[in-house]
Amino acid sequence: MILCDIGNTNASFLQNGKITHIKVSEFKNYKPNEKVYFICVNEEILRMIDNDEMFVNLEPYFEIDTIYQGLGVDRKAGCYMINDGVIVDAGSAITVDIMANSLHLGGYILPGIASMLNAYKSISPRLDVTLNSQIDIDALPQKTSDAVSYGIIKPIITLISKLAGSKKVYFTGGDGDFLSKFFKNAICDKMLIFRAMQKIIDEKKEILK
Amino acid sequence: MILCDIGNTNASFLQNGKITHIKVSEFKNYKPNEKVYFICVNEEILRMIDNDEMFVNLEPYFEIDTIYQGLGVDRKAGCYMINDGVIVDAGSAITVDIMANSLHLGGYILPGIASMLNAYKSISPRLDVTLNSQIDIDALPQKTSDAVSYGIIKPIITLISKLAGSKKVYFTGGDGDFLSKFFKNAICDKMLIFRAMQKIIDEKKEILK
Repeated sequence: MILCDIGNTNASFLQNGKITHIKVSEFKNYKPNEKVYFICVNEEILRMIDNDEMFVNLEPYFEIDTIYQGLGVDRKAGCYMINDGVIVDAGSAITVDIMANSLHLGGYILPGIASMLNAYKSISPRLDVTLNSQIDIDALPQKTSDAVSYGIIKPIITLISKLAGSKKVYFTGGDGDFLSKFFKNAICDKMLIFRAMQKIIDEKKEILK
Repeated sequence: MILCDIGNTNASFLQNGKITHIKVSEFKNYKPNEKVYFICVNEEILRMIDNDEMFVNLEPYFEIDTIYQGLGVDRKAGCYMINDGVIVDAGSAITVDIMANSLHLGGYILPGIASMLNAYKSISPRLDVTLNSQIDIDALPQKTSDAVSYGIIKPIITLISKLAGSKKVYFTGGDGDFLSKFFKNAICDKMLIFRAMQKIIDEKKEILK
């Protein structure tokens, strides 16, 4: 069995306990030799594989209690695993969702770190800088590269802290590990979405077999 | 006399009390018939006009007390006018600077609102939305367009409020008016940079005549 989480930039696979990634642009050349259980937020890829019998879409099985319209299946999957806490998936976009007593209270979306660096770059060559990952976000920046790094990291951390209050924060996604280090009690779980997919497969095994 | 503030996207003019704007791409066709006193953060335009005797660069005259390296002249000009407070110039980029007793304590840079919308759009067609300018930033979003609008506006407002504390916030730039409405005591002054330029011209009239 292969699990696959298809995002906007990468498709991530879990097979025999190992995680691998390919670019979504390379996905059309991907021919699995066993069944792939997947979730997908990329509409182009979804059209490509949704009628292929080697691919099983897990999206219909992720049901969470929410009034949010159009919650992406990757966010649903993350929320499905957490009864109480803030879930941050830091990839191409950074999605932030809050759960309380298994109820989804809402969430918001920030551009991912790479996308923010591109945004600065497109404004002015002066703002085309490398992220200073060591920046002290409690001190005011005193040069442009820090002013940009602060402008990327500080809003992410401040908003998540404010939303979380005393709740635990669960990070996943490519930048999850980096961002979790700005918190005292955060958990980074690269496997969160795959664990959610495995859980659904176990729960729905009568239907999915 | 013409005053001109050249940014990354637009050049803004003040002549006979009237403000007009042109795109920086149109600037090379601009031939003034009287002296233009200017500040410029756009290096390409600066190279073009810096040796033209019809253009007088005011940058050398803006001296503010700071340890910040490479503070843009537009930010210097804004800070020059405010002894105590937070100065927010919301254009292609949003610059935020804090002054206390005429001392510049530091500042940071966020992408402007248009640039943020572009960043979301480039991540996924699902995130290509129109800004909901009426969004309630005290409630958690319950749909994608609000999740994006919140993700743009909430960080700007939260960080500025936090930095300002009880200090006054002075907005200028294209989105200054819009953003100032999220604050109780903010001042929006579209003329801030032009007033700074006029002040320098008055102070240095012996040198500049």
